[in-house]
Order: sequence, then structure tokens, then C-alpha cells
Amino acid sequence: MEKRLLLTPGPTMVPPEVAAAEAQPIIHHRAPEFDPIFMRVQEGLQYVFQTKNPVVILASSGTGAMECALTGVCSPGDKVICIEGGKFGERWGEIAKAFGMNPIREAVEWGTSVQPDRIKELLEENPDAKAVCITHCETSTGVLTDVKAIADVVSKTDALLLVDAVSSLGAEELRMDEWKVDMVVTGSQKALMLPPGLAFVALSQRAIERSQKATCASYYFSLKKYLKNLEKKTTPYTPAISLILALEKSLEMIKKEGLENIWARHAKLSSAIQAGVQALGLKIYSQVASHVVTPIWVPEGIEGKAIPKKLRDKYGVTIAGGQAQLEGKIIRIATLGYATLFDATTGICALEIVLKELGYKFEEGAGIRAALKVFMEK
Amino acid sequence: MEKRLLLTPGPTMVPPEVAAAEAQPIIHHRAPEFDPIFMRVQEGLQYVFQTKNPVVILASSGTGAMECALTGVCSPGDKVICIEGGKFGERWGEIAKAFGMNPIREAVEWGTSVQPDRIKELLEENPDAKAVCITHCETSTGVLTDVKAIADVVSKTDALLLVDAVSSLGAEELRMDEWKVDMVVTGSQKALMLPPGLAFVALSQRAIERSQKATCASYYFSLKKYLKNLEKKTTPYTPAISLILALEKSLEMIKKEGLENIWARHAKLSSAIQAGVQALGLKIYSQVASHVVTPIWVPEGIEGKAIPKKLRDKYGVTIAGGQAQLEGKIIRIATLGYATLFDATTGICALEIVLKELGYKFEEGAGIRAALKVFMEK
Repeated sequence: MEKRLLLTPGPTMVPPEVAAAEAQPIIHHRAPEFDPIFMRVQEGLQYVFQTKNPVVILASSGTGAMECALTGVCSPGDKVICIEGGKFGERWGEIAKAFGMNPIREAVEWGTSVQPDRIKELLEENPDAKAVCITHCETSTGVLTDVKAIADVVSKTDALLLVDAVSSLGAEELRMDEWKVDMVVTGSQKALMLPPGLAFVALSQRAIERSQKATCASYYFSLKKYLKNLEKKTTPYTPAISLILALEKSLEMIKKEGLENIWARHAKLSSAIQAGVQALGLKIYSQVASHVVTPIWVPEGIEGKAIPKKLRDKYGVTIAGGQAQLEGKIIRIATLGYATLFDATTGICALEIVLKELGYKFEEGAGIRAALKVFMEK
Repeated sequence: MEKRLLLTPGPTMVPPEVAAAEAQPIIHHRAPEFDPIFMRVQEGLQYVFQTKNPVVILASSGTGAMECALTGVCSPGDKVICIEGGKFGERWGEIAKAFGMNPIREAVEWGTSVQPDRIKELLEENPDAKAVCITHCETSTGVLTDVKAIADVVSKTDALLLVDAVSSLGAEELRMDEWKVDMVVTGSQKALMLPPGLAFVALSQRAIERSQKATCASYYFSLKKYLKNLEKKTTPYTPAISLILALEKSLEMIKKEGLENIWARHAKLSSAIQAGVQALGLKIYSQVASHVVTPIWVPEGIEGKAIPKKLRDKYGVTIAGGQAQLEGKIIRIATLGYATLFDATTGICALEIVLKELGYKFEEGAGIRAALKVFMEK
């Protein structure tokens, strides 16, 4: 018998009660019974985003929300500063280019994060920049960016700050209104504990105002249209109803646990993973590790893709490998969303077993002992 | 106790086995266990679209598929003939305009369908037109358009034929390859018996070739990117996994029943609805009624919105009202997707009860007798 465990940075595991909510009979989204659900979902999203402003709900992946956000507040020809320190950071620049903006693409060494001072310099060099686009947690490298400090810089200028929080929202502290972040986008299949298929755009008053003047080509992702429909408590096109029913349930669970507690849980679980792998002699890849996903160098002498393959095929534990230039070079273990301390310990136990089978030399049990220690100490 | 019945032209009812498939544990879309599911889904979609070519799967509503299709084969400045005979037909022209094309917007009187000869004239008047966009079943009016005859005209020219079959695919006969239709788009929440959240674009070889030269601004809906990823049996962005698991199940059910049988079932059920309402003295709104949805004039003296409201609030039966200029003037009853003869009879029974309560005069039982007759005769 096999129980499957998903320790990937998205899609993540869906709680059974959320899956059950998703499987409820379909109700019509233009019927009055949908209204209170939509309202509760709005309130729950505002809590998760830590904003008082409305949150746009899209039927799309997180990339769709990035497109909706950027094309929704910028126009062709606009100068946009895009920070690229990984596969997902590059997406901002690609979207800007696809819609005729003028992206200033700032490459950041993979594994490191952009510094607020550098953002300041970039804004001084480009005083006409309309937006700064960053990635909260760069899922491909596990790096966390200091959104609060960057928001402090950007909010003093005319540029809007757009944050890709697709993998981080609900896992890492992010206080949108308090920190003065203009736009935050996320997807459903991460800390929100849902299947993929929903994406979200939260925005500041400044961003709402800017959206009225934006002229990028858009139809399905027209931010203006979504904002207008939000006033009528609806969406311009048919929403992904079953996923919204599931979202209602997951937001209820998030509210019950409390956002601060959830952030602390993610910190604890990822600390245990980090302690565990380091006690096995493995090295963490990123300089600024997030609590979303732990990137780990594949030890010398071990075939890079063998670890995730064996974990998955033999033990039912799915972790992620490296992407793009990191393919075969790192593994990534996430305890994101619906994950408990025993999912973290199972991850380390499974890793020890597989590393042993692959011939890696280490003190058996050292990893899980170090992981447990994180949970045992106050 | 109340059992709820959804007799709307989308979203439609989801079979319990499909809902159960949707609630399965999430598997990772980049893991090998997803591959056979993706392959089976491709095969099933090719069957439903009646095409040998690959079918693009999007996480979006049907409107997203329309955008993906049109922007995927046309470029800014391109002349595009858009046939507008209802709320959804207008969408083609709106998308064309939003992306800088030059739409020739041909208004067709609501309730009627465009004639193939008129398409021929339009193409003669506009020999440089790059595409003709039509609506198979215009959900807002219930009108069916003769796709086969129009394809016969368009396929002899250089223009591509794009068909919005969002509400019709799987309910009405549509043989894409045989009829030489270039692009067909649909959504999940209609005859495919799924929740909303997935959309599809099927395309001819001609359309695939044209897609390589198209230059509209696009990123999430980049048709080129989806086609390229289809070769690797994947999607460029995270797919809506739970809905694809559900789709696998619904396609299995569709294959088992057989497309011809499903078309015949939809014809039979809508004939029963039409016979029932006409026996009650009500009039059908559209001149060319589809089997997707039956649009019915609200009888004089009855408040237009009272019928759907009472049906839903008192009896748990949801039908649709009129949209846009038809708001309050018609009601629309659909037996679309997961619907049996007893859903049709329940619809007529409920309608009789509610019409009686609203003071409409008719021979009690005449409607259901006429509906039953459709099922009783060979």
C-alpha cells in the first residue's frame, strides 16, 4: 500500500474537506445563492492579502494573474523595471515585452535576491519607470525577496510595485496595505490549498486609479472589466465555480488557523527541512531561503534526477527537481499549504532512505534527528 | 426536502462520478503519472471535436478560448468578418477590436441566423478578410447557425472559419475535419458536463500554419506556445489539474454513450421542451431553435423575471432568463449535458405549476402530456 505525499512548491495537497467542497453540486453563478459565497470569498481573500481593497478572481493559472496585473496598469511603450532572478522573475519581462512595453530587465544572480538599494538606484536611473516588478518567493531558486523594504523605496516614487506572490502568499508574511504594495498576484495551488485553476490580483487605490488609464490590448484579462464587475459582486466571464466553492472552504480553514500561525507553521516546517538536510551533509542552494521551498544542491556523485524519481516511483513522495539551468543540479522540497510537521518528518525520512539506496554516505538518522529537534525545542 | 435541478445553458449539472473524479488527490502535472491522463484526454477531445488534430486545453472560461483562437491566427490590422446575432456573437467583434484588428461587424437580427449566401457576399465584398467568426449556438437567443453550409463557403477562400461552439459542442452535430472548419472553441461547463474553468481550442492544419505568422500581443493565451507544448504533451502553464481529472471521466462517459446518441438525446429532450411549452400556448422565440436551449417568450400579463425566480426559489429548478435586450422578455430552458428525459419532464411539470401560480391561463397538464408524447412515439 502507498500513501502519496506531495512536497512540491505547487501544486500542493488539497485538504479532503476542500476537495469535498469542490465536488458539491454546481450552482449558477448568476443566481442569488452565489452572492453570499462570493462575498465570503472576497472577505477571506482580503484577509489573506491583508488588504481592504477588492481582490480580482480569475479563472486561469498564476501567469494569467501576472498578465492581468501588468497589462492592467501599464501601456505600450511604458518603462517597466523587471527583476529577474529565476524562471518566474523572467516572466514579468516576457509579459512586458509581449505587450509592447519597454522592460528594463535587471538580472539578479540566481540564488540571491535583489537589494532595496539596487531598486532605489534603478528608479533613480529610470525616473520615468511606471512599475517595478518583483518576485516574493522565486520558486525556481527558493529565494525570498524583502518586499517590505522594497515597498518602502518604491512607494515614495510614482512607480507601482507589482509583486508575484504566486507561491508565497499565505506562507510568508506579506502585509499589502501596511507595507504599501500596489499589486500582489497569486495562484490557487500553493498555500491556498486548492487545485490549480484560480488566480488572484489584489491592488492598491493607486493601482486602481492607474488601471483607468492603461491601454494594453486585453479582453479576457481586462482589469478594468473585472474591477467594474466586482462593484456588482460578480465576474465578467463565467467563474470557475467548483474551485470557488473549494476556495470558500480553504479560506475558512485559513481564518480558523490564523495567518500569523500559518506563517509560523511554514517557518517551522521549512526550518526542520533545512536542519534535516544540512545534518545529512547537504548544502542549501539559495542565500536567502524562503519558507516556501527549500532548494538543495544534489551531492556530488549522485545523478541529479535520481533522487526525485526514486522518492516518487518507489515511495510515493513527490518533490521537485531543478528548473532551467538548475535541472539535475538541485532538488526542491516544499512543505507548502496543507502540510504538517509529520509531512516534514516523512520527507526527511524518505530522503534518508533514498540517499542510502543511491549510495550517498552519511550518518543514518542524523537528518531526522536534526529535524525532530526543531520541533522539540520551544 | 428539495432536490435542485439546473436547466440552464451553462453551467450545467455535473455527474456525481465526474465530481468524484474532480475531488481526487492532486497529482503533479510534470510527473509521469499525468502523461497517460493527458493523452487519454487528448484522444477524448479529438473524438468530441471530430478532429484528428491536437486540441489546446486552457485554464479559463470559454471567452479565453475565443481570445486565444482569434489572436492566435490574426494580426493587428487584419480584416475579420464577425457575425453578431446575440450577446455572444458580439464578443468576436469586441475581441477583434481590443487587439487592433479591423472587424467587419455584421449584425444579424436577434432570433435569426446568418445565411451561407450572406457569408459568401461578405467574403466577395471583403476578399482580403483573414477570418470569418460565427457562433454555432447563440446561447442568448437559442439560435443555431448552419456551420456545415458556411464552412462549405469559407473553406473555398483564404479566410479561416472560427466557430464559437461554447454551448453547442457535444450537444449539436459538429464534424470539424469533415466539414472543413478551421477553429472550434468550447468551454467545460456545457455539454462536457464539467464545472466551468476549462476551455478548448481545436484547429485545422490551415489554422496551425496561420498561427505561426500571427502577431497579436499575447502571453497567457499565446496559441503558438500551447501548440509547441502540445508536442511535448503538456501545457505552458500549470493546468487546472482537478478539472482535467474530471474531464477524463466525462470524456469516458461521452465515449461510452456515443456522440451520435448524445446528439440524438439532446434533440429529443429539446423537442419535448418545445412541444410542452407550445402546448401551454407559449411561443418559441427563435426562428432556428437549437437543441442546446429553448428560448420562450414570456406570456403577456406575466412579469418576465417572476417565472425563473419562482421556479428557483420555491421549487429548486433553475432556468435562465433573457440577457441584454431580452431581459425580462424571454425565459430559456436547457436540457444540456447531464440531462435525461425525466429532467425534461420535471422542467415542464415545474413550469406548469409556476405558470398556474402566476395566474397564467392554460389547460392544466397539456404541456406535460405533449412532452411525454415526444418520448412515447417511436
